[in-house]
Amino acid sequence: MEISENYLTNRVTGEIGQATAIYFPTSQDDVVELMQAVRKNHQKLITIGGHTGLSGATFPDNNQVLMSLEKMNRILKLDTETMTLTVEAGVTIAEISEFLAETPYFYAPDPGSKEASIGGNAATNAGGMRAVKYGVTRDNIRAMRVILADSRELQVGSINRKDSSGYDLKDIFIGSEGTLGVITELDLKIQPKPKFSRDILLGFESLTQLSPKVFEILASGLVPATLEFFERDSMSYSERALKLDFPDLSGQAFLLITLDGNAEQQLENELDYLASLSDEALILKDEQTRNAVWQLRGAIASSVELESIQEPLDVVVPVNKIAPTIIALKQMAIAADLSAIFFGHAGDGNIHANIIKNDLTDEEWTEKLEAYLDELYAYVAKVGGKPSAEHGIGLLKKPYFQKYIGTSELVAMKAIKRAFDPENILNPGKIFDL
Amino acid sequence: MEISENYLTNRVTGEIGQATAIYFPTSQDDVVELMQAVRKNHQKLITIGGHTGLSGATFPDNNQVLMSLEKMNRILKLDTETMTLTVEAGVTIAEISEFLAETPYFYAPDPGSKEASIGGNAATNAGGMRAVKYGVTRDNIRAMRVILADSRELQVGSINRKDSSGYDLKDIFIGSEGTLGVITELDLKIQPKPKFSRDILLGFESLTQLSPKVFEILASGLVPATLEFFERDSMSYSERALKLDFPDLSGQAFLLITLDGNAEQQLENELDYLASLSDEALILKDEQTRNAVWQLRGAIASSVELESIQEPLDVVVPVNKIAPTIIALKQMAIAADLSAIFFGHAGDGNIHANIIKNDLTDEEWTEKLEAYLDELYAYVAKVGGKPSAEHGIGLLKKPYFQKYIGTSELVAMKAIKRAFDPENILNPGKIFDL
Repeated sequence: MEISENYLTNRVTGEIGQATAIYFPTSQDDVVELMQAVRKNHQKLITIGGHTGLSGATFPDNNQVLMSLEKMNRILKLDTETMTLTVEAGVTIAEISEFLAETPYFYAPDPGSKEASIGGNAATNAGGMRAVKYGVTRDNIRAMRVILADSRELQVGSINRKDSSGYDLKDIFIGSEGTLGVITELDLKIQPKPKFSRDILLGFESLTQLSPKVFEILASGLVPATLEFFERDSMSYSERALKLDFPDLSGQAFLLITLDGNAEQQLENELDYLASLSDEALILKDEQTRNAVWQLRGAIASSVELESIQEPLDVVVPVNKIAPTIIALKQMAIAADLSAIFFGHAGDGNIHANIIKNDLTDEEWTEKLEAYLDELYAYVAKVGGKPSAEHGIGLLKKPYFQKYIGTSELVAMKAIKRAFDPENILNPGKIFDL
Repeated sequence: MEISENYLTNRVTGEIGQATAIYFPTSQDDVVELMQAVRKNHQKLITIGGHTGLSGATFPDNNQVLMSLEKMNRILKLDTETMTLTVEAGVTIAEISEFLAETPYFYAPDPGSKEASIGGNAATNAGGMRAVKYGVTRDNIRAMRVILADSRELQVGSINRKDSSGYDLKDIFIGSEGTLGVITELDLKIQPKPKFSRDILLGFESLTQLSPKVFEILASGLVPATLEFFERDSMSYSERALKLDFPDLSGQAFLLITLDGNAEQQLENELDYLASLSDEALILKDEQTRNAVWQLRGAIASSVELESIQEPLDVVVPVNKIAPTIIALKQMAIAADLSAIFFGHAGDGNIHANIIKNDLTDEEWTEKLEAYLDELYAYVAKVGGKPSAEHGIGLLKKPYFQKYIGTSELVAMKAIKRAFDPENILNPGKIFDL
């Protein structure tokens, strides 16, 4: 069987793996059948969604069978009374948006890649820009159907809004990166679209100046729909790629904030409050400027990719540690002679640090990057952070994850893996080594 | 060792159990020591919080050791930057409220019993009135320290606001009713107090008239802080107990709604909208009336308890099934010649049905109640509901839970239990039988 190189490639490192075969099930029954065959043949199974992951979680090794859910892409049911959208796991985020565009509802999570599948989003507990108000993928899934390693179907969660009836199975599978079961179908929480939305851009001289404003906003009780930060530098890549100009606002560090809600006057009052937080404030009234700013923000990572190999990181730290962490990580990068840009979700403490290869040789890059990552993850652990906020651990972050997680926690995770997949059939060697 | 009868009593049935001993640890080290001793002596351990549970989850059997965490009641740390309150598991909900009263923050969950411990709230995933806006206990715990059956300490969750770093251990322990580990310490999410709050009472001729208004409110995008419903009948118990009068509003079914937020004008506009939904609307401007209505609502269950033995249920159904479910359950009660009152959290589909013994003999009561519960839980399962929304399964709901849960789900829960507590030391026989 010829396997398209796309499915074998680690998107981040460019490495190409090997697999025995690839299958494209079109129904849950197909998944069950494939699972039975894989188990019988003592093979291993890697489930692939949109193949947009950034941690190598679907990268295959020998004797591994690939299963892409891209053909399980039907939107099954819109239930407006319980505000639930039922979809197959291969449906993309873009397809969900498109479907709901015609309705009064929206699905809140807004992760970077719109070509990601909803099953992949669930498997990595994807985050995105709107998490500060609407939560991450975990908070927006009511229920799922999962095929286990022994081919049984499991229903996890329900469309009930409250539940204290036994152990919470749903949240074990969310974020388990295909190592515990195959998510085939999901009941998503949808919400009424807010009637109004406003955006504002605030410039600051430095991250040190920006950081206290984030606390101030969060402590005021205002809950923005997005609360993004980035440094001026990180915009230059998307400016070149999109041929768009960032607004002429002085400052080296920026907050880009969206407010949404049904009370227009209230949003205007909140905007005035936000504008008062910086001498360099631009309310994005003009639709063209607004779109440009959001396009530039959204394209940071993909624009870097056009110019160089990069390592896209998604560490998370407690919200009061964002500024000191970025300052420390920048100093480490300078000391290591590595290019890096920093941006992310200030309301969540989620820092994207993209480390850029530029014209380093492969050897230099590997050596410098490894040394830098050792130092970076040690720092993140020291301030109480975690290696992944929203991309997952996969293969690429596994060494750091295993190094800094508590022994008891790792033992507990392995016990869960063994309980659900005693023969280690599902995505073996990802997240941790058994 | 003399054990006070209080700890041995099933609060709902009045039954008195037996236990080998009771301990009152004052530190996590004490818990570890006790766990080691229990394991060594091949005993079983039941952890007790505020002893306010309504499902018999702490009811002891022979050769079981009781451990009350009531002396682990210190508030350890208020971290305003990450908005985290760290407490020992024995701290009560009332003590948390009292502590935070002096600060600009609040802990959002508001379960019925204020004497419940926060550890018990976590163990049952307690809900309460404000869940429709602020979520249940699960949504308001950032992290916990848990002592496992093998005496290891486990840190689950973190104060980071996002996390995709390995399996979600935290949510397995929340709602596990003391069967997987002993929760000793919790990091709670706290939030800025909303500046304004408004309450309104809406009367309707019947539940059938009330029910569509609930959808209408939820679909409007308005997110009330509470969205309570009750029938006129259910108020009569608390009117007698508290010697307070319910406002003179005609109707048999009521919605009691709280709006909160920082924008006063917006709340007034929303109140106007809500008032337009019923001819019998009373905005609770007068503080005395407002307090009286909330006291009457809060005291329903405890007031019934003063007059009769009762069985307090907390089923949950999809939000669009509330009215048909209550209508069906009422008809069943009439047919069975049983008294029952219905109230609950309309925004969550969480129905409290309190079945009242009155002057039935013990034999009549047991027989009629069992037959009724068989019918009730069958109906709830048929409409996609669950036996417990917020009290937990414990002992009392175990037969119904085991009957209606899917086979795969029960197998999965048992696998988790065995993974964490292979010797079945912790609260054996609760939720399900191994």
